[in-house]
Amino acid sequence: MKLATFEVETPVGPVERIGAVLEASEHPAAVAGEATLVDLTAATAARLEAEGEPAPVDLAHARVPPEMIAFLERGDRALADARDALEYASETDAERGPGGAKIRYEPDEYDLLAPLPRPNSLRDCMAIEEHVQNSMDGDIDDVWYDIPVYYKGNADSVVPPNTTVQWPEYSHIMDYELEIAAVIGKRGRDIPADEAEDYITGYTVFNDFSARDMQGKEMDARLGPAKGKDFANGLGPYVVPADDIDVLEAPMTARIDGEVWSEGTVDEMYHSFADIIAHISQSETLHPGDVIGSGTVGEGCGLELGQWLEDGSTVELEIEGIGVLEHTVVE
Amino acid sequence: MKLATFEVETPVGPVERIGAVLEASEHPAAVAGEATLVDLTAATAARLEAEGEPAPVDLAHARVPPEMIAFLERGDRALADARDALEYASETDAERGPGGAKIRYEPDEYDLLAPLPRPNSLRDCMAIEEHVQNSMDGDIDDVWYDIPVYYKGNADSVVPPNTTVQWPEYSHIMDYELEIAAVIGKRGRDIPADEAEDYITGYTVFNDFSARDMQGKEMDARLGPAKGKDFANGLGPYVVPADDIDVLEAPMTARIDGEVWSEGTVDEMYHSFADIIAHISQSETLHPGDVIGSGTVGEGCGLELGQWLEDGSTVELEIEGIGVLEHTVVE
Repeated sequence: MKLATFEVETPVGPVERIGAVLEASEHPAAVAGEATLVDLTAATAARLEAEGEPAPVDLAHARVPPEMIAFLERGDRALADARDALEYASETDAERGPGGAKIRYEPDEYDLLAPLPRPNSLRDCMAIEEHVQNSMDGDIDDVWYDIPVYYKGNADSVVPPNTTVQWPEYSHIMDYELEIAAVIGKRGRDIPADEAEDYITGYTVFNDFSARDMQGKEMDARLGPAKGKDFANGLGPYVVPADDIDVLEAPMTARIDGEVWSEGTVDEMYHSFADIIAHISQSETLHPGDVIGSGTVGEGCGLELGQWLEDGSTVELEIEGIGVLEHTVVE
Repeated sequence: MKLATFEVETPVGPVERIGAVLEASEHPAAVAGEATLVDLTAATAARLEAEGEPAPVDLAHARVPPEMIAFLERGDRALADARDALEYASETDAERGPGGAKIRYEPDEYDLLAPLPRPNSLRDCMAIEEHVQNSMDGDIDDVWYDIPVYYKGNADSVVPPNTTVQWPEYSHIMDYELEIAAVIGKRGRDIPADEAEDYITGYTVFNDFSARDMQGKEMDARLGPAKGKDFANGLGPYVVPADDIDVLEAPMTARIDGEVWSEGTVDEMYHSFADIIAHISQSETLHPGDVIGSGTVGEGCGLELGQWLEDGSTVELEIEGIGVLEHTVVE
């Protein structure tokens, strides 16, 4: 299942909804924004009505609220409801559920947003040794092996898939980073590593856009990075439940203007997501909607390859089983 | 005016409200949690009813919502409404407004929360040269002079005033940092320095609790800090509007178990709040409820003094005109 957040134009203004890709439709599901989406809240209401539930709309909004963080907060039960809704929508011929709400949206009927348009928080690790070695000229501090270090990104700077990223004026070295991000769906604190995977609802593609000139300055001052990263974070196109993807084996690819620049997996993570969650949650509460980046896969950015994005470059990050996250950068 | 967020017990559970300190009351206003608070939403409704407004409760909630970030979003008009409400409450003998809402709360009738229990974001600079010199053994990177570097804190880790902070098990070097924080009240992007002060609604005291052993490790890896800071952030006790305080001259004091450890002002900031806001907002949007710390005043933490907090230490940070922010740390 591929979970999405999307926006629909209405006479009273745009309305945000959550959906899932209808894989059986005539549209290519893997390409972001070109899939048929099932409105999970509307389809749940339709399913509940068919089962004879007397208040299907209210109950559907309570169980499958049309906002991703509220949905995540409902845990495994909401995921099961979403799967039921998707199955119901793929079997029924009905176009609308109770109250007249549309059950399916074709590509020209919605705008795809990031699955979490505004995460509760954004942390980014650098858990893959090859990337750190390549980025730091082989000079890795011992502490990197002891703890999964990370910085916190700007949760307000998430950009939707298939949009243009305006590069900041203060930077002239434009880079991408190919990462996978875990999406937290359960509140927890002091989480043992062997229970940590229960806190991950799913995974999404993360493009940690990097203004390398500014980032270098900030890291010399040993704080941040901040301005080197915070102008744009690509997340999406979908969140795929943890049960539906073998995250360590999923092939990851970065294509710049159609040319493959990076290929890899996060199989090589020195610190696992479970260890990372155990580390972060020490004396600190994790919340539904928190997003944690893996760090860049080996050779997963221009810095490691000695080549940079240019004005107008289109960056496609693909993770098999999740989809293609595409942005165009302009100076 | 001193703005607060407080919680009231009710038969249907605790309810969050915003208030202002009634300075003229018999209670000592400067001591957090021991002041009489005016409920700004209820007092606004009472004032509007007295003026003949036909829907005073709805209008009061729209103009002075009982949640600090929603209040901040309403800008200068909400501040003016709050001042009117405070004046009305200090002049009327009425105890309750329309709908029976209490206008004033005595110290035993409320729990003081942080003025922003969950800021939209938390950034922390280190803009005071003496602190950086003392902390880095005089080895300040040139970039520090070029740009106001900062890291991003954990907005989910704000602890209420007058509470106990449980120190993380992974740390044994316990420290405070004496800072003032600017509270953003207006959305903006690419803000020129000479307009930046319009974006600051007010100021509050910030205790950037620091686990120095962990922070040292993280800064060696040149990311963060994260676990060195993110277990607790003290903010409060009040937000004082920018017009009501001379922020550069306000005397700042840290007392540990009653003994003065630190004294200073942020007059010595190398990068002003205006320059910091201009820097942060480049290609990045600032939002109401964003909080920006000044960085520690010179000799404003134990690291600079060669002495640490101990199990049971009570830390009082006072900024004249704002109040005393008190916490007790326990191992």
